[in-house]
Amino acid sequence: MDQTLSLVLFSGTDDKLNSAAVMTAGAAAIGKPVHIFLQYWALDAFRRDRIDHEHGLAPEAGPGGHAAVKALASAGQETWHETLRQAKDLGEVEIQACSLSMDLFEITPDDLDPLVDGVEGVAAFWMAAGDGQVVFI
Amino acid sequence: MDQTLSLVLFSGTDDKLNSAAVMTAGAAAIGKPVHIFLQYWALDAFRRDRIDHEHGLAPEAGPGGHAAVKALASAGQETWHETLRQAKDLGEVEIQACSLSMDLFEITPDDLDPLVDGVEGVAAFWMAAGDGQVVFI
Amino acid sequence: MDQTLSLVLFSGTDDKLNSAAVMTAGAAAIGKPVHIFLQYWALDAFRRDRIDHEHGLAPEAGPGGHAAVKALASAGQETWHETLRQAKDLGEVEIQACSLSMDLFEITPDDLDPLVDGVEGVAAFWMAAGDGQVVFI
Repeated sequence: MDQTLSLVLFSGTDDKLNSAAVMTAGAAAIGKPVHIFLQYWALDAFRRDRIDHEHGLAPEAGPGGHAAVKALASAGQETWHETLRQAKDLGEVEIQACSLSMDLFEITPDDLDPLVDGVEGVAAFWMAAGDGQVVFI
Repeated sequence: MDQTLSLVLFSGTDDKLNSAAVMTAGAAAIGKPVHIFLQYWALDAFRRDRIDHEHGLAPEAGPGGHAAVKALASAGQETWHETLRQAKDLGEVEIQACSLSMDLFEITPDDLDPLVDGVEGVAAFWMAAGDGQVVFI
Repeated sequence: MDQTLSLVLFSGTDDKLNSAAVMTAGAAAIGKPVHIFLQYWALDAFRRDRIDHEHGLAPEAGPGGHAAVKALASAGQETWHETLRQAKDLGEVEIQACSLSMDLFEITPDDLDPLVDGVEGVAAFWMAAGDGQVVFI
């Protein structure tokens, strides 16, 4: 159970970010290290000046899904980035930005929320993942 | 090959639900146990009163994709929930609802199709997954 | 690190196809064999007469995302299929079409780009995957 979970986080909607955060917190809670690799729209969502914005939901959410998510937020549910912050306090959680996606958005580490620990390339990601679990969200 | 496949099923469109069902049936056919964990829009699609509805397709399907899926359904292709029912007859397939997503939709186990075996939390999911395969759809 | 990565490629948008191609190239670069299984909209994108078309982006891309992707392409970024071609030169990369998705689109292997090595069923996919890494994109 101490094998690292490598999580490629690609999607930038609040529902998938929340699912990733909750899965990460659950893994951290049972002592599983988590290595998150931010690509594309997920990386965009971790920008310092955007992390607090609304990032929409998957297209299939529909009006009922939007209402349910809004109701839970109004009831005080923590955001996905708060959940990730707690997961980092709780366990061994590392968040790296994909260098190619950094180039895509022409941003530097200073543009990212302090939740992000650094920037790495795809080969480094695979070296760290080894033969362990890899999940793409 | 007797290692359990843990499948986080998040998406609620018929194409992804069908892909998940077919992957599950294929795994069951070769004797691989499958543990499905329903989150968000996938859980919504397993509601007793909605499981038979149409749940749409991924946005990139386009008119050609919609026509192809409709033609196959008209030709008698089984639905994703029929495929899952058969997979459960065929092998060791367990379907659990994520407790946080149950809260999101404010539903109880009675609201779900009998395909769903129970409700569990994220930590329980990870404990069951161990260091085995984890796939997110 | 010589364990095979099995990649179910379902999505047909250029951003996810590019992410899959880059992840594959990175794995190939460190000597990891990659077995890609094309389903649904990803298979559609590998058609001989469509592989060069634009395939859109995930819905959350927004105008800023579209502009960033376009700017990188104009600056000479290689396409996802060029990246996959290089990955095949570089390492052990095999691309198989899912037989059920071939039926869905009513196409034959001749309709596919030569990048695709053959057609296989879901059970064959699982037999090849064994207990190794499986990623769904």
